[in-house]
Amino acid sequence: MPEGKLLTFIKELSVLLEQKPSEEIIFTKGKKLLETLIAIDDWLPTEFTKPHPQYYQQYLLYADPLDRFSIVSFVWGPGQKTPIHNHTVWGMIGQLRGEEKGTPYYPQAGGGFKIGKACVCPPGHVDTVSPNTHDIHVVENNLADQTSISIHVYGGNIGRIHRSVFDPINGTPKSFVSGYANTLVPNLWNPAQ
Amino acid sequence: MPEGKLLTFIKELSVLLEQKPSEEIIFTKGKKLLETLIAIDDWLPTEFTKPHPQYYQQYLLYADPLDRFSIVSFVWGPGQKTPIHNHTVWGMIGQLRGEEKGTPYYPQAGGGFKIGKACVCPPGHVDTVSPNTHDIHVVENNLADQTSISIHVYGGNIGRIHRSVFDPINGTPKSFVSGYANTLVPNLWNPAQ
Ligand SMILES: [Fe+3]
Ligand SMILES: [Fe+3]
Ligand SMILES: [Mg+2]
Repeated sequence: MPEGKLLTFIKELSVLLEQKPSEEIIFTKGKKLLETLIAIDDWLPTEFTKPHPQYYQQYLLYADPLDRFSIVSFVWGPGQKTPIHNHTVWGMIGQLRGEEKGTPYYPQAGGGFKIGKACVCPPGHVDTVSPNTHDIHVVENNLADQTSISIHVYGGNIGRIHRSVFDPINGTPKSFVSGYANTLVPNLWNPAQ
Repeated sequence: MPEGKLLTFIKELSVLLEQKPSEEIIFTKGKKLLETLIAIDDWLPTEFTKPHPQYYQQYLLYADPLDRFSIVSFVWGPGQKTPIHNHTVWGMIGQLRGEEKGTPYYPQAGGGFKIGKACVCPPGHVDTVSPNTHDIHVVENNLADQTSISIHVYGGNIGRIHRSVFDPINGTPKSFVSGYANTLVPNLWNPAQ
């Protein structure tokens, strides 16, 4: 059996991150690895593609036991949208299926936000976030009649990190931990079809 | 939520193995970690405790993406027994539930085996195998009316390694890859109850 695409990605990312690369390297070499992973949409087990009627879903696919990185399948039903939120670690968002819109929010001195230019992401596109450059955004499904799925990679265990959602009017942060929807993750060496 | 016992074990084993310890250290410090994991039998999700009517089951719980170690739940129905087999990497076998009998086989110059002294393992007991000392054995459920479960830890991805089963009469090896019964493994940060 040939090695699965997700396992190949995790191996190559592990090797890259063991070199303790700069964020610039992560967002070039690491980004290329993620682009390769999402270039062909035939590897994500059905279990991790299911939308929830009310909420966008965050299915953990793999996390490093020592919290060096995590990989999550985000699944958005029609109309689903995040609050304004941050990440506190580097992140790469790779569009696998459908289309998502990411809108950056820039905190303003007097409170509140300046809303940046939205990016509409087609399959194959990788976007980045980082506390060093711009870490606050809103993401939503850009399709009214279809599920959209993106594969997110973070420089920490994103579902366990204490981070913030923000009030859109006055910018007040509120602490949250996103968690995961799933109690089981893929067996990378015996993936379901 | 307190950290799960399996996650704690994997973190501590990862930190230990990153120091590239000798086998002696693995079989002392690593063994202690496994003894702590199996000391209380309340953490293995039901999914990974199920016997098969015909075959002993090997459920992957976690494997390092770079093949540095793997952790497997072995589940034995009454009367189930392995062939004579080797591992080719270090291994620790921690009894979680029930009782297993491990019998070492020593290859003889003229072919065939000398059968060693069997070890009957009660819950909490950890046994070891290693290509540097003794790597060939048979394991079987020692209970005629009950499932037995042991948690195995190996210095490689045991389900993917090309290793051998042996003919009991003439000792002839036959190559095999054991694989895994499960397509999903535990989410260590959101375990099922
Ligand atoms: Fe985000
Ligand atoms: Fe064995
Ligand atoms: Mg390492």
